[in-house]
Amino acid sequence: MPSMSDFQQERDRLNDIVMKYAGQGIKRFYSLDGQVYRDGALPVKTKELLGLVASLVLRCDDCIKYHIARCHETGVSDAEMEESLAIALIVGGSITIPHMRRAFAAWDELKTAHHGDTENTEK
Amino acid sequence: MPSMSDFQQERDRLNDIVMKYAGQGIKRFYSLDGQVYRDGALPVKTKELLGLVASLVLRCDDCIKYHIARCHETGVSDAEMEESLAIALIVGGSITIPHMRRAFAAWDELKTAHHGDTENTEK
Amino acid sequence: MPSMSDFQQERDRLNDIVMKYAGQGIKRFYSLDGQVYRDGALPVKTKELLGLVASLVLRCDDCIKYHIARCHETGVSDAEMEESLAIALIVGGSITIPHMRRAFAAWDELKTAHHGDTENTEK
Amino acid sequence: MPSMSDFQQERDRLNDIVMKYAGQGIKRFYSLDGQVYRDGALPVKTKELLGLVASLVLRCDDCIKYHIARCHETGVSDAEMEESLAIALIVGGSITIPHMRRAFAAWDELKTAHHGDTENTEK
Amino acid sequence: MPSMSDFQQERDRLNDIVMKYAGQGIKRFYSLDGQVYRDGALPVKTKELLGLVASLVLRCDDCIKYHIARCHETGVSDAEMEESLAIALIVGGSITIPHMRRAFAAWDELKTAHHGDTENTEK
Amino acid sequence: MPSMSDFQQERDRLNDIVMKYAGQGIKRFYSLDGQVYRDGALPVKTKELLGLVASLVLRCDDCIKYHIARCHETGVSDAEMEESLAIALIVGGSITIPHMRRAFAAWDELKTAHHGDTENTEK
Repeated sequence: MPSMSDFQQERDRLNDIVMKYAGQGIKRFYSLDGQVYRDGALPVKTKELLGLVASLVLRCDDCIKYHIARCHETGVSDAEMEESLAIALIVGGSITIPHMRRAFAAWDELKTAHHGDTENTEK
Repeated sequence: MPSMSDFQQERDRLNDIVMKYAGQGIKRFYSLDGQVYRDGALPVKTKELLGLVASLVLRCDDCIKYHIARCHETGVSDAEMEESLAIALIVGGSITIPHMRRAFAAWDELKTAHHGDTENTEK
Repeated sequence: MPSMSDFQQERDRLNDIVMKYAGQGIKRFYSLDGQVYRDGALPVKTKELLGLVASLVLRCDDCIKYHIARCHETGVSDAEMEESLAIALIVGGSITIPHMRRAFAAWDELKTAHHGDTENTEK
Repeated sequence: MPSMSDFQQERDRLNDIVMKYAGQGIKRFYSLDGQVYRDGALPVKTKELLGLVASLVLRCDDCIKYHIARCHETGVSDAEMEESLAIALIVGGSITIPHMRRAFAAWDELKTAHHGDTENTEK
Repeated sequence: MPSMSDFQQERDRLNDIVMKYAGQGIKRFYSLDGQVYRDGALPVKTKELLGLVASLVLRCDDCIKYHIARCHETGVSDAEMEESLAIALIVGGSITIPHMRRAFAAWDELKTAHHGDTENTEK
Repeated sequence: MPSMSDFQQERDRLNDIVMKYAGQGIKRFYSLDGQVYRDGALPVKTKELLGLVASLVLRCDDCIKYHIARCHETGVSDAEMEESLAIALIVGGSITIPHMRRAFAAWDELKTAHHGDTENTEK
């Protein structure tokens, strides 16, 4: 499994190639994709969990990693993460397990890295 | 489109047939399916929205109707419903539109019925 | 839910329309679709259970009904049916439940009808 | 199977309910959904066939009916329709057959109705 | 393609991370997932073929590899494997071909390794 | 991301393993899979775009790469490619974005390589 920072770099590299060819339709979709996760009646954190569960039941590893990173940034707790992934597992079945494994591995990587960062900062 | 109460009745009738044949595996799954939506680190309302968005992107009309009814019971607002369905639409694409239409129609039916009940009660 | 005989009639009617337009590609696919379920290293009964489980996890009601009818014709028992559908449920998750309900309802209809026929025959 | 005109009416009725609740996200998606099928480097007819094949492999009956109607309006021939549906069938497998049946039935209904209109016009 | 033993090791490593976070819901699902494949009215071998075909039509490489290994352990023959994968291919369409390729490659790896072991044993 | 030529080599290697085990069913499917993309009422180029859009909404990276290569060979322009992928994105939603990224990256690789070849040829 590539690290989360490698994933982000490759994602950026490929998005640059998309933008080299993208017309108005694709550009507007990208913009809309950003808008629906903004703070509203539902807080950003809840919206990211909605995006994560949708990504897990549809079994898209890159989408899962992206939302795992966003959940981490917006302060989702371990318990909230576990409960959300349990719902995704029950809805989507055992076919989602390999993706759930990689979701927890990405979460664990971010939690561990963040914990290290915090300690370094405190020194 | 059958009404929400017709949907519930047919669902109960068919679940009775399932239980006539179900062994331990199916019964345990049903039990587990109930447990993961219970109040925890995330409130029931959020969990029902997670179940709804998962059902919409996977395009299962019966699952959508069930979670729409549960969202209504747990006090989801129109704005929270709209923002959740917008995320599902962006994640799942135009292929989800027919299911989103039926989701809003079920929501509208429950909102209208509920509003009528309230007015009757007030008299 | 339409009855199993209504389902068969509508299926035949629509297949006639397909054949009105079908070229070589579609006709060859139909032929191939018949061949792979024939008796071989695996018996027909097992092949029909494979087709049924595939249809359930892919959530196609018409495909499920077709294979339920074939499973009934080839002598699948209640226990074999239940164990197969339990596997499909675990693999496919709660999103398959509405389809599993209709699978058991179709099975129950055939079992009940068959039981009636047998009794009539015995008289 | 409801007729194509009943389908259109129900679709319009449900879209009205969507618009009663829709915020900016859903409205922009609807607008974008219209734009990508407009005449461009690829003619409208080809774009409708792309939408149809996508709808068939994803197995959405309402989406299929919508694109079948648009294909009919934009002058797709029987042979072009059959070749497109044959590709969808091979890509998507036998699980798409029930949807392909309904696709050809919708096509046949429009062709027959249109033929009748033409005859009336000729008189 | 990573080897089957590398696949098993990575799978174990990731399952350990899952269990670090898993609550009762996820643990019970894992337990249930084991139970439904146990010997019953249908033999274990048939159940593993059901799991394999479900995994192939749902196109999950890790699930496919797991069931391929289990099929090998439970004595599935080449002909039984081929007939099962042919059904999955017809049901799921050409979109499953890349996964079927990797299924046969995993099967071939296990057969070749096993054959080598047998020869060594015979000496 | 492996290069397009590495992808082709690995694909050939795995197809050889498939053919080592394949019976009549799988062989006939492969043959049929070739036939439906042949020139007919619709030109090969349009058929490859149909196959590409179907592959993108079903989110199969190997299928996408194969049809991207075929689209390049049959003379699809950048604008035709972009309009086709925009339709796939709108139909399939943001869950297709990672696959669309890899589609454009494969396209860009072929365009860049081809451009280099052309220049060499011109000298």
